[in-house]
Amino acid sequence: MLYNKIYGEKMIKIGIIGASGYTGGELLRFLNNHPETEIVAATSRKYDGQSIYKVHPHLRDLEIQFENLKPSEIDADLVFTATPHGASMKIVPELLENGMKVVDLSGDYRFDNFDTYEKYYGYKQINPLKAVYGLPEINRELIKEADLVANPGCYPTGAILACLPIVADSMVENIVIDSKSGVSGAGVTPTEASHYPNCSDSISPYAVTTHRHGPEIQEKLAKFGNNKVSFTPHLVPVIRGIMTTVHSFITADITSEYVRESYSEFYEGEPFVTILETGEVPRLSSVRGSNHCHIGCFDIDDNGRLVIASAIDNLVKGASGQAVHNMNLMFGFKETESINMIGLHP
Amino acid sequence: MLYNKIYGEKMIKIGIIGASGYTGGELLRFLNNHPETEIVAATSRKYDGQSIYKVHPHLRDLEIQFENLKPSEIDADLVFTATPHGASMKIVPELLENGMKVVDLSGDYRFDNFDTYEKYYGYKQINPLKAVYGLPEINRELIKEADLVANPGCYPTGAILACLPIVADSMVENIVIDSKSGVSGAGVTPTEASHYPNCSDSISPYAVTTHRHGPEIQEKLAKFGNNKVSFTPHLVPVIRGIMTTVHSFITADITSEYVRESYSEFYEGEPFVTILETGEVPRLSSVRGSNHCHIGCFDIDDNGRLVIASAIDNLVKGASGQAVHNMNLMFGFKETESINMIGLHP
Amino acid sequence: MLYNKIYGEKMIKIGIIGASGYTGGELLRFLNNHPETEIVAATSRKYDGQSIYKVHPHLRDLEIQFENLKPSEIDADLVFTATPHGASMKIVPELLENGMKVVDLSGDYRFDNFDTYEKYYGYKQINPLKAVYGLPEINRELIKEADLVANPGCYPTGAILACLPIVADSMVENIVIDSKSGVSGAGVTPTEASHYPNCSDSISPYAVTTHRHGPEIQEKLAKFGNNKVSFTPHLVPVIRGIMTTVHSFITADITSEYVRESYSEFYEGEPFVTILETGEVPRLSSVRGSNHCHIGCFDIDDNGRLVIASAIDNLVKGASGQAVHNMNLMFGFKETESINMIGLHP
Amino acid sequence: MLYNKIYGEKMIKIGIIGASGYTGGELLRFLNNHPETEIVAATSRKYDGQSIYKVHPHLRDLEIQFENLKPSEIDADLVFTATPHGASMKIVPELLENGMKVVDLSGDYRFDNFDTYEKYYGYKQINPLKAVYGLPEINRELIKEADLVANPGCYPTGAILACLPIVADSMVENIVIDSKSGVSGAGVTPTEASHYPNCSDSISPYAVTTHRHGPEIQEKLAKFGNNKVSFTPHLVPVIRGIMTTVHSFITADITSEYVRESYSEFYEGEPFVTILETGEVPRLSSVRGSNHCHIGCFDIDDNGRLVIASAIDNLVKGASGQAVHNMNLMFGFKETESINMIGLHP
Repeated sequence: MLYNKIYGEKMIKIGIIGASGYTGGELLRFLNNHPETEIVAATSRKYDGQSIYKVHPHLRDLEIQFENLKPSEIDADLVFTATPHGASMKIVPELLENGMKVVDLSGDYRFDNFDTYEKYYGYKQINPLKAVYGLPEINRELIKEADLVANPGCYPTGAILACLPIVADSMVENIVIDSKSGVSGAGVTPTEASHYPNCSDSISPYAVTTHRHGPEIQEKLAKFGNNKVSFTPHLVPVIRGIMTTVHSFITADITSEYVRESYSEFYEGEPFVTILETGEVPRLSSVRGSNHCHIGCFDIDDNGRLVIASAIDNLVKGASGQAVHNMNLMFGFKETESINMIGLHP
Repeated sequence: MLYNKIYGEKMIKIGIIGASGYTGGELLRFLNNHPETEIVAATSRKYDGQSIYKVHPHLRDLEIQFENLKPSEIDADLVFTATPHGASMKIVPELLENGMKVVDLSGDYRFDNFDTYEKYYGYKQINPLKAVYGLPEINRELIKEADLVANPGCYPTGAILACLPIVADSMVENIVIDSKSGVSGAGVTPTEASHYPNCSDSISPYAVTTHRHGPEIQEKLAKFGNNKVSFTPHLVPVIRGIMTTVHSFITADITSEYVRESYSEFYEGEPFVTILETGEVPRLSSVRGSNHCHIGCFDIDDNGRLVIASAIDNLVKGASGQAVHNMNLMFGFKETESINMIGLHP
Repeated sequence: MLYNKIYGEKMIKIGIIGASGYTGGELLRFLNNHPETEIVAATSRKYDGQSIYKVHPHLRDLEIQFENLKPSEIDADLVFTATPHGASMKIVPELLENGMKVVDLSGDYRFDNFDTYEKYYGYKQINPLKAVYGLPEINRELIKEADLVANPGCYPTGAILACLPIVADSMVENIVIDSKSGVSGAGVTPTEASHYPNCSDSISPYAVTTHRHGPEIQEKLAKFGNNKVSFTPHLVPVIRGIMTTVHSFITADITSEYVRESYSEFYEGEPFVTILETGEVPRLSSVRGSNHCHIGCFDIDDNGRLVIASAIDNLVKGASGQAVHNMNLMFGFKETESINMIGLHP
Repeated sequence: MLYNKIYGEKMIKIGIIGASGYTGGELLRFLNNHPETEIVAATSRKYDGQSIYKVHPHLRDLEIQFENLKPSEIDADLVFTATPHGASMKIVPELLENGMKVVDLSGDYRFDNFDTYEKYYGYKQINPLKAVYGLPEINRELIKEADLVANPGCYPTGAILACLPIVADSMVENIVIDSKSGVSGAGVTPTEASHYPNCSDSISPYAVTTHRHGPEIQEKLAKFGNNKVSFTPHLVPVIRGIMTTVHSFITADITSEYVRESYSEFYEGEPFVTILETGEVPRLSSVRGSNHCHIGCFDIDDNGRLVIASAIDNLVKGASGQAVHNMNLMFGFKETESINMIGLHP
């Protein structure tokens, strides 16, 4: 282990496999300021040998170059695998065997049920391994002990946090999750859907009942309560952020204030979950660039429909910020280290 | 009556009260090309005496000036009242008494139940009159005979069209309407919500269970079937357009294809409703600037949730285009006259 | 020739080669309403056999299918070649030989000087032909007689119109053209530059002194006066539109009003050029979706710098609208037929 | 003085007058993390008594309330006056007399020539005081000794940094500055210009030759060289950021590389100025939320026109970040303390 440059203590070595995407860029942004970590590898096949700022123009001051490394060539304490779905499972076992901890940002290890994974991702899980689902708000203690953490999907992060208390307390039935995601959620590769003239000044639903984050939400919530959970995502002209609107029908005679207080209690002490007050609504700009999840509304209408909405930054709380949170837990660092930035509003 | 300049036939005289707002601008855009109409008054208190292009910079070639006219000073065959809620009811009776037909774009005459109006709008209906709700797809024949047409709200237009067949055929229960509106829906007056740095690159829900378009949707759908209908709107960074996502739970064992075919049959022959094919999703850019409503999805998930989505331009099908459609019906003109423009994509 | 369905007169047959791009979509939008034209071919290799609305979702009501046709298989009176630079020159000669008129939307025939073309486009002009540069404001009479019209580039259209009178009257020296273009100008194919997360909420200059529209502007203006003309384009987060800001230094003691009046006189009677009044500035939304060019400012500062700005829609006046304008001139139709739409504001 | 909570050393007390605007919000964001400062007053007349997060929804975790304080009620070591132009001069003298240092973010103390101030701002300078112009790259040593620092305007910051070396080395003549600013530059108050439907998807020039930042640029550059400097700003649909494109004409036979190297030398060691490499262009997203200024291009065309472009975040390097930089200098703190955040891209 290296000596921590700042405090003279030991720091850990970090590898990032697939560092040229948006989640790779965000990992570099957070780890750059982390007093306990040193980045020893940032891999990219395509940009091998290039300075990272050629791809991440905002990371101008980080003197790191992309390398085309095999997993076996990485010597680190923890590796973030920001690799495509289906690719992570091919390298994670080797990394673990070589004594490294892994936070996997793909979907490969998110499911307990490998059949569900195969059905929705189209890949056979060839290297089934026991992973901890890395949502700290539900698995904090397990994450601390884990060698392999499956970092949650972006939609599931916002949706699960918005639903957990009502599911755990059996307050509702027929949960409908209507999510709206910024375009960065689709990744760094240009497509027709992400082409500015197509997606700017427009909105559309997609994968209306078939999005693979649906079963992920369902499997994780099922551990807390027995609910039908339906999910539909939309693409909106926003760079970052997911607004998740949860509609459900109350099964007992509860009030908005009761629900709000349940949420406040449920998330008490959570560093990255904020329960908004009466009269406030979550908005994406409040969490832009931050690791916070804002949850609000809690309104109930005459039909007994309860509305809860959550806002996250899909690249931070929905991906790389949460991954660093998991790392902090896995190594006993301060939980909020390097990911406690304030959002960028306006 | 004047003689039609182009075809040598009689044309009608049109007044627009409140012509300086967005709906006023759109009325001017459509009527400018209409072979059967002549604009004889475009009122504005604020811009009295100014050329309309000072306010509507795209209407450069229309040689019309705003005038600060009292209703009694207008001599027209039909008046569009693009006036604020609460203001229309003060002038509509006089216009009718003076022998003019009226299409009112405010909320004042949309409700059969005046108590609902008062509850949600905060005004007492001081001049209750019998008006026809101007959604041509449900009231075509009544509109043809009407002297006073209440032009529907923007959200209700998209929501009612998306819900009608499932409500009429009693296919579902627990309808949840999650709508996303562009910022022009808030009108021409700058507010904190419409301030670019606040609403760009962000999303937020608002009036979560209390928006006044909720009871309007409910009252109109109630004539077709007995359903609980819940409504929540969101503000999205789009200039024009409303995406309405309708979630409901099927009550019989029906298929997506059955639903799609029901919609195709229901709207057969409707000039402004398009039922999308399997694999297509509605998107706002397809109807930008046009009077069309695209309805699609019809997907059913494992929980029996059915998803239907509709896209309209809030200022056209959701306001001024529909108003001109109503006028065309009221005077026996070709229904699609001057409002059959193709959308602006990209 | 076919009979005109509406007026019972002959109408002309139109082919569009490369109909699946944005300029193809706009040609279809305009020609659909044209009383004198019938579209007999809309070619696309990629989408052969598909309905055009699969690609152009707003053109829902046009019952046209893409076909993969060779030029020799097209029987039309006029063909629009919306083909890539370097591809047009391979098919235009054959079309002309087969007796068709051609409006070419590529850069292949824009230059009088083939060496300049080769230098900036990287292709050798293998089929040099005499073409008329299709800017109606300077070449109206030549266009009427032409068999081959080279439709101007988008930047040159806005820039030349903004510069012509000061160049023709030798009022200035050292012309600097700073242009800002919407992303649709880059075409229908997704790239890193057009990827929403990259270009939204951002701006950047590109091809700073090397853009191929620079020499096009220079060659055309050189026929009117002897000026050094420098050009730099920027990409801005706008779907459509080019704002061209022209900075130059006056060489005689002239006033803003003198310049404005010179422009008004110069463009008198031009159906698509509007000279704004004192106190107005051009803005893209005023010409969104329209074929108009707004020219304004004419301010002179203490350094003798004169500022003139023009706004166009790059896909309309900067491409397909102008192409239809050229067609109207070539066949003696009413100049503004089908392209006199009002812009879409807001 | 208070004891620094973290390091056990003394920290300074900070007041922010006018803390509810965008620059106030950014000051709070930066100072919140600053180990040497404690915020003792954040004033707002309008929001007196409210938590700051009611106005700045991203500053959720700062337990600070707005207070309606008179200057005489503030006891601080340094006060940031984020007050309107014309208002600062009424309070700054009292603050200074009471022994506080001041960084003024208004235009009141930016000019050496009070007549220029009066001409362009419309206010008489009733309390003329000697202030240091707070652009650290030119006045670092003076700032260290100053009691009153006039924080530069946003446009001047980007423009002066882009021009300084060519002016200082007399490389050019006829400087034309064409700037493009995001909408947050217009402040927190909604106006027609900042109304989303008006400014989204559009661009327009404004104050074409009369913007008050023009003479500010001119006065500051005049100290380094004798140049005619012309300035025109544009409003672009971006939340944050100013892209400044500087066009000028070289007066000697120099090359792009020579210019680039001059800039690299000129700004050597500057923590917040980055000279981009050949082939790179500045873009706003690279500096979004950061205090950095990226300068690039340096291209020279055949007409001897040199193009240099700079990108800054108008609220950070163009306002509050620079203000904190000035504070750091005034108190001998580490220059980059709390303002060395990495930009938010995408």
